[in-house]
Amino acid sequence: MKRILLAAVALASVSFSLSAQDVFEADRARWKETAQNTTPTLHETIVRPVAVVDAVSDPAAFQGWRYEKVGAPDFYDKPFSRINTITLDFGKHYTGYFSFHTKTLTNCMDAPTRFKFMFGEMPGEMNTPLDPWKGGLSRAWMQDETVTLTEMDQWTTIPRRLSFRYLTIELLGTSSGFEFAIDDSCFKAVSSAGENVVPLNPDCPQEIRDIARVSEETLRECMQTSFEDGPKRDHRCWSGDLYLQSLANRYSFRNFDLVKHCLYLFAAYSREDGVLWSNMFDFPTVHPQYGSYCLPYCLIWNSTLLEYLKDTGDYDTARDLWKVARTQTEHALTYVREDGLFDINAHPTWIFIDWRAGLDVNAPMHGAMIFALQQTYELATMLGCTDEVKEYPALIKKMTKTARKAYYDKERGVFTSGPDSQVSVMSQTWMIKAGVLNQKEAQKAISNALASESTVMPGTPYGTHYLIEAMINAGMYDEARAYLVEYWGGMVRKGADTFWEAYDPDDDFLSPYGFFPLNSSCHAWSCTPTYFIGKYPEIFQK
Amino acid sequence: MKRILLAAVALASVSFSLSAQDVFEADRARWKETAQNTTPTLHETIVRPVAVVDAVSDPAAFQGWRYEKVGAPDFYDKPFSRINTITLDFGKHYTGYFSFHTKTLTNCMDAPTRFKFMFGEMPGEMNTPLDPWKGGLSRAWMQDETVTLTEMDQWTTIPRRLSFRYLTIELLGTSSGFEFAIDDSCFKAVSSAGENVVPLNPDCPQEIRDIARVSEETLRECMQTSFEDGPKRDHRCWSGDLYLQSLANRYSFRNFDLVKHCLYLFAAYSREDGVLWSNMFDFPTVHPQYGSYCLPYCLIWNSTLLEYLKDTGDYDTARDLWKVARTQTEHALTYVREDGLFDINAHPTWIFIDWRAGLDVNAPMHGAMIFALQQTYELATMLGCTDEVKEYPALIKKMTKTARKAYYDKERGVFTSGPDSQVSVMSQTWMIKAGVLNQKEAQKAISNALASESTVMPGTPYGTHYLIEAMINAGMYDEARAYLVEYWGGMVRKGADTFWEAYDPDDDFLSPYGFFPLNSSCHAWSCTPTYFIGKYPEIFQK
Repeated sequence: MKRILLAAVALASVSFSLSAQDVFEADRARWKETAQNTTPTLHETIVRPVAVVDAVSDPAAFQGWRYEKVGAPDFYDKPFSRINTITLDFGKHYTGYFSFHTKTLTNCMDAPTRFKFMFGEMPGEMNTPLDPWKGGLSRAWMQDETVTLTEMDQWTTIPRRLSFRYLTIELLGTSSGFEFAIDDSCFKAVSSAGENVVPLNPDCPQEIRDIARVSEETLRECMQTSFEDGPKRDHRCWSGDLYLQSLANRYSFRNFDLVKHCLYLFAAYSREDGVLWSNMFDFPTVHPQYGSYCLPYCLIWNSTLLEYLKDTGDYDTARDLWKVARTQTEHALTYVREDGLFDINAHPTWIFIDWRAGLDVNAPMHGAMIFALQQTYELATMLGCTDEVKEYPALIKKMTKTARKAYYDKERGVFTSGPDSQVSVMSQTWMIKAGVLNQKEAQKAISNALASESTVMPGTPYGTHYLIEAMINAGMYDEARAYLVEYWGGMVRKGADTFWEAYDPDDDFLSPYGFFPLNSSCHAWSCTPTYFIGKYPEIFQK
Repeated sequence: MKRILLAAVALASVSFSLSAQDVFEADRARWKETAQNTTPTLHETIVRPVAVVDAVSDPAAFQGWRYEKVGAPDFYDKPFSRINTITLDFGKHYTGYFSFHTKTLTNCMDAPTRFKFMFGEMPGEMNTPLDPWKGGLSRAWMQDETVTLTEMDQWTTIPRRLSFRYLTIELLGTSSGFEFAIDDSCFKAVSSAGENVVPLNPDCPQEIRDIARVSEETLRECMQTSFEDGPKRDHRCWSGDLYLQSLANRYSFRNFDLVKHCLYLFAAYSREDGVLWSNMFDFPTVHPQYGSYCLPYCLIWNSTLLEYLKDTGDYDTARDLWKVARTQTEHALTYVREDGLFDINAHPTWIFIDWRAGLDVNAPMHGAMIFALQQTYELATMLGCTDEVKEYPALIKKMTKTARKAYYDKERGVFTSGPDSQVSVMSQTWMIKAGVLNQKEAQKAISNALASESTVMPGTPYGTHYLIEAMINAGMYDEARAYLVEYWGGMVRKGADTFWEAYDPDDDFLSPYGFFPLNSSCHAWSCTPTYFIGKYPEIFQK
């Protein structure tokens, strides 16, 4: 009966239109106000370059390039026409606004002066020709900005927010018979993170400290007016990343107001049927990416709310937003067949599990659904409203059985997925997260999957996060630590200041967008080592 | 005795240093205030494109390119990603500020959008690749501006002032799965010219009307907060151009306050020894091009003051600035030898007569000096202070004799100049302007010079102006008219909206800067047909 009702709801939500009833009509104004009131103040820090560097083409370096320090940033009093091109190293990754001051040294400018400023996170990004453009996303994500000055002796600020460590300034044209200097430059770095308040154990090994530091820097840079995906690229809060950021935040900045802000952002601007959009922009005015709907990201929002409640004890918020959480599982259940199988084709939609070409999402999505039901039921339990979701325990049971039946290859000891019985790490991790296997089976599934060369591996730190988590769930503590040190530590050893959106230890040029300079090298979903290190000190900090 | 004194003054001025006495110390504050108080208000007009055009490569067209109208500017409601690149024709030359508005059509921008805007005066300039840069002046004079938008649905104004007829907008990158339009654009055209108050005779022929119109447009566009050299390039007031502009202004806009403003600009900011800098910038704060000193331009300022007095009867201004005029001739006289020869090597300096490679300036400069003495003495006569320059008539006489002796080849009937006895049009024009020849001799000199293939011809409309004037002085009215119609009319026939900085009927690609797109195609010194047509209606308007 309930299921029939759910199916009806599903049809209504899928055939979403402007004339549909707004299910949260009575709440939106309040939620928007709460989102507005929890907008954080950004901490501002003025930073300056720490070194002048030269690019060195080096096949042994990550993406073929590295920078070598050639001197202190003592160019401020020198005629810039003689410098012409200079690359500055700011010492670490920063996000914010760049300003520079020009000063006439001799004679008088009698023509405009033009500069090209190239800001980049990585040496490879800085030194790879961008045009003709081959990237799969907007060319304008690249942070090369041309500025024409018609006057000297003034401060100029580049309008767009930038995210970078390195800056190349190139003089494209100026007045002849005249000398000027860039006699000052500064970068106003912004972040809402605040201070890390969760220290590591004194005897934590250096390699873990390094990973934790880079992890923390990644999260700090992504903490702006919302938990952003990447401060260089994407400037928005994705629900899936928010979940991981909120976990890492617990073991670092503990800025739970920002989690609350983001939870309300999603709730206030949901689709009229209450389904959440996959990502929210927080500036200059709040808006979702209308039309972008990602089923697993709807569900993971419920986990973020649950974790927020556990972190803060803020029952008012959890009660206020409970109906949003319930709407997400109810909507997702319209994909679940009578026999308990999650049918990704019930209403064709975007199911994002990981960036990895060819990954089959049938099994992972099934696991994600079970997990969502568990988390939502746990939330209901804490809020004392299990009557609203009383069928969930039975559903979880049924879907768990179906999972084993439909996807678990008992003989090989792994989950397979899709028409070609694909073995992927993601299938194992989500089924383990959903508790479908006991610990021994889970160990076997992970080991078996990792042992086979044909297994579809995670393509990103996002997928790898869930692998580490599954290992810990399976009691594979040494393996979890070794994998984390190998994977995130690999980025550190390759020179990461912040953790990268995409990382394959065997392919430095991997890109989800067909052109690696477009990759975000400071990316929300890559920040979770700090969560594992903080949550499991006995595994990682000794 | 006097000459010895002058020589001493000269040494002081040449060895100019910061410790030198400021000869106008008591006057500068007042002059600056007058310059400030006469800063004109700019008239603003909002204009929009009148057509969409396509570039056509055509060897018969000026500089190899022309535009063909392909439609009305009806792109405002169309998805710009499908247009990608568009060239707009604003119908005529404008100077001012460009703004555009973007509007989201479908979905939501999730990446920055980047445009390249190329503003240009001429089809050839618009369609010639600019990089790698070959121009002799700043690359930044070219009006290609790249703009990155991080938000839609807003107005954006390009900060720099622009001067153009054509605009190509190219989309360099945007969000996918999203459509937007440039749903409005406008150009705030600015000029201080006002209305032309000097109509042509009703029966004035069309070819003269066309030349007068283009002439007037040229002057209008150059009339900003000062009489600018070129609104695209140079954005400043040169003393030599100011003289010609003030003449053209008399027969068009009659905005004499702007002449007064410019006269005071030069006076207030002169070198400490009172010698004028060659050019003044009027924005964002008034300043000369310190270090740029051009002897003939100092002297011609006196003529501008004289013409201003004749135009306005403003004796207060002329009296106030008389000492500046006298300083210019006194300084220039330090170049004149005891035998009355202007010695350009007395103190090496920049003597600009025309942009023409190899032009020898000895004879033209000698003529310019005699003319300056005449004009300054005429000014003194009007002001009743000839006692201050009582030696000028004798000096004029002596220099006139010396001119004939040193430079006039009686046999050939032309002036020659320099060690190679160069025959140039400029030598004839300045000697005729100085009254060195009688009318018959003048006719012969001009005719002889023009008849010889080896004569150094004028390279610009500036030089050509003085040729037309010399022809009129010599009574060669038909020739003057024919030459004006041939030369400036040639630009009109080649599509000029405004008259060009450099024009050689036989070389469409002539450029003083080694790269024709850098040329200014709306240039102060080219605006004088309106002066000739207005002053001599009996020659030109019938």
